[in-house]
Amino acid sequence: MSKVRIGLVGIGSMGTAHAQYLIANEVEGAELTAVCEQSEERLQMFAEEFGSSVACYNSYEAMLDSGLVDGVLIATPHYFHPEQAIKALNKNLHVLIEKPGGVYTKQVREMNEAAAKAGKVFSIMFNQRTNPLYCKLKELISSGELGEVRRMNWIITDWYRSQSYYDSSGWRATWANEGGGVLINQAAHQLDLWQWATGLMPTRIRAFCSFGKHRNIEVENEVTAYAEYENGATGVFVTSVCESPGTNRFEVTGDRGKIVIEDGKMTFSRLRVLESEFNSTFKGGFGQPECWKFEVPVVGKNPQHKGITQNWVDAINKGTPLIASGEEGIKGLMLSNAMLLSTWTDNWVDLPIDEDLFYKKLQENIRNSRSTKNPLESRTLNVSGTH
Amino acid sequence: MSKVRIGLVGIGSMGTAHAQYLIANEVEGAELTAVCEQSEERLQMFAEEFGSSVACYNSYEAMLDSGLVDGVLIATPHYFHPEQAIKALNKNLHVLIEKPGGVYTKQVREMNEAAAKAGKVFSIMFNQRTNPLYCKLKELISSGELGEVRRMNWIITDWYRSQSYYDSSGWRATWANEGGGVLINQAAHQLDLWQWATGLMPTRIRAFCSFGKHRNIEVENEVTAYAEYENGATGVFVTSVCESPGTNRFEVTGDRGKIVIEDGKMTFSRLRVLESEFNSTFKGGFGQPECWKFEVPVVGKNPQHKGITQNWVDAINKGTPLIASGEEGIKGLMLSNAMLLSTWTDNWVDLPIDEDLFYKKLQENIRNSRSTKNPLESRTLNVSGTH
Repeated sequence: MSKVRIGLVGIGSMGTAHAQYLIANEVEGAELTAVCEQSEERLQMFAEEFGSSVACYNSYEAMLDSGLVDGVLIATPHYFHPEQAIKALNKNLHVLIEKPGGVYTKQVREMNEAAAKAGKVFSIMFNQRTNPLYCKLKELISSGELGEVRRMNWIITDWYRSQSYYDSSGWRATWANEGGGVLINQAAHQLDLWQWATGLMPTRIRAFCSFGKHRNIEVENEVTAYAEYENGATGVFVTSVCESPGTNRFEVTGDRGKIVIEDGKMTFSRLRVLESEFNSTFKGGFGQPECWKFEVPVVGKNPQHKGITQNWVDAINKGTPLIASGEEGIKGLMLSNAMLLSTWTDNWVDLPIDEDLFYKKLQENIRNSRSTKNPLESRTLNVSGTH
Repeated sequence: MSKVRIGLVGIGSMGTAHAQYLIANEVEGAELTAVCEQSEERLQMFAEEFGSSVACYNSYEAMLDSGLVDGVLIATPHYFHPEQAIKALNKNLHVLIEKPGGVYTKQVREMNEAAAKAGKVFSIMFNQRTNPLYCKLKELISSGELGEVRRMNWIITDWYRSQSYYDSSGWRATWANEGGGVLINQAAHQLDLWQWATGLMPTRIRAFCSFGKHRNIEVENEVTAYAEYENGATGVFVTSVCESPGTNRFEVTGDRGKIVIEDGKMTFSRLRVLESEFNSTFKGGFGQPECWKFEVPVVGKNPQHKGITQNWVDAINKGTPLIASGEEGIKGLMLSNAMLLSTWTDNWVDLPIDEDLFYKKLQENIRNSRSTKNPLESRTLNVSGTH
């Protein structure tokens, strides 16, 4: 079996991290054969070090047409993802894109259609789906171990970003270029995990976004969202990038008790009988079901980005099912879009959302933008410790 | 100094608990001289045991006119509180009422007016204000130790109540008699502590109440509320009485870090420099302020109901400042009313609330009630372990 020849698009902060593990041959069945980068400075630096084995392009089209790549890994700013992905799929290349799939759901839908037409493997870098903690949660919910889900509360505020971070890239935190803030960038992972691990999408959402809180940016950087589900369950999702040290605590209650993920550990407070069963038979005053609290053993490490790239390569080489397919990538983005739309309309948003209304409101924000940032200006950040 | 002669009104679940510590002479400077109870059966049982030292009345007015009492401790169902309190104040007696002060804020306002006119001591049984954990939180916030408050999240769902509990009292969980559910009864304590410990009242609230969730009752038993504050802070308050084992976790973030109260412990993640100061000077990519996490020593035990009764007696005897004055009792109830009103109107509610609108909506609920419960039917529950 020949190796999948990967073309890497964008060698900024995230792209450089991808290049490193690919060049170190840490993804089995794959090799980095080409990179493409708009910044002459970055491209030259890369060429000086790796130019002998990796072809360097400043034109995306030239790389796609080079015959040197079977698939592309796209690590450009978000707003390039849909266009670049569709171009590659239309040239019969496999595609793996950094999250988010797009800024609005219609973009992901179009990529999925192009992938289906080309019959190529299209995946999105949801590198938290390979986190054993959330894999375990998914298993405990889907197997019925927790009973019917009733209430959720996820506080995910440990994505601290300083003003300096926002100032480092001209495209960041602007409506025109990043297309959003914490929802589209940092918390995109948790929004994806929220629906993926629980298997639940809300029927409607009421959300409250703060824009440019404690920071000189125009997009949302603190969000509280309330969600309602078909089975009567409710959920709260809170995210912020201006808190330190922040919290990452996900609580899910069900008919069988409560699971809490915090500090990298999973605690299960498990009832011996279902709450609903206890309630229907108990005849006393203040009693409640017997509960056993324990830490759930969670085995393994999260292979992160490399794990998703490996899965994409395996899907190409051996037909391995995708961990994060394009079809699935739309769901977290739907939640994200719904939260902004609810804030913009100061009202409930039913799901699936009105895609045209979201697009219209986003364009209004772009037109009304007062950002003076230059999207082409940026400096490379060390992304170790980020996701 | 002569002892304050207390008349206890109602010897149901809670009243019996008050009688026990008063008869055991555990409140200094006070004695139980009379009780009043509508249920002949209960009154007779009480008289058989304590009738030699405590006068027993089935008429409230007769007890007030007996000349045997200097003050009354009212532990009847909520909807009796305002009328009974005002009657006693108008007869120049001191008053301590069980929480809540009333079902709607206007009632508490009227009691405060009567107390001011009579010049008598009027207090409400907020027996969590004597919990050293929340006293400590109040101190850390009011002293500026936490910095400006930015975000709060209180999940208080460990007030489990079974259907059997609701069925035990005809007046419980009905609009006409209890006047509400978890907000007016169980979480009334936390709503009071929320504003008391933080010193903050929201400017507006958007809340989502579920009525009769998993229980055959008509009032709210699960609530998610979102609050906004004048300084830009936000807060989430979640409460439920149909979850087991439930959670009691209060997180408060400020410019100086984060305080979490959970499992009876207080953890402070304290930044060495204010976040705002770090943010204004940091020039790197992903850095954040140095943080020291430690458990805050919290000394003492909560004297609970007895502590509030002692404070009320001390206020009468020695002019000791009240821990929970009637003037303060209105604030938690304002939050509670706002949450119901927001749900009923499916909209934001500005604070202070429109009291007349709340009253009108409450009356609508009473008129539309389908409850078939008989408010006079009940059985005495053992309240050990409740608040």
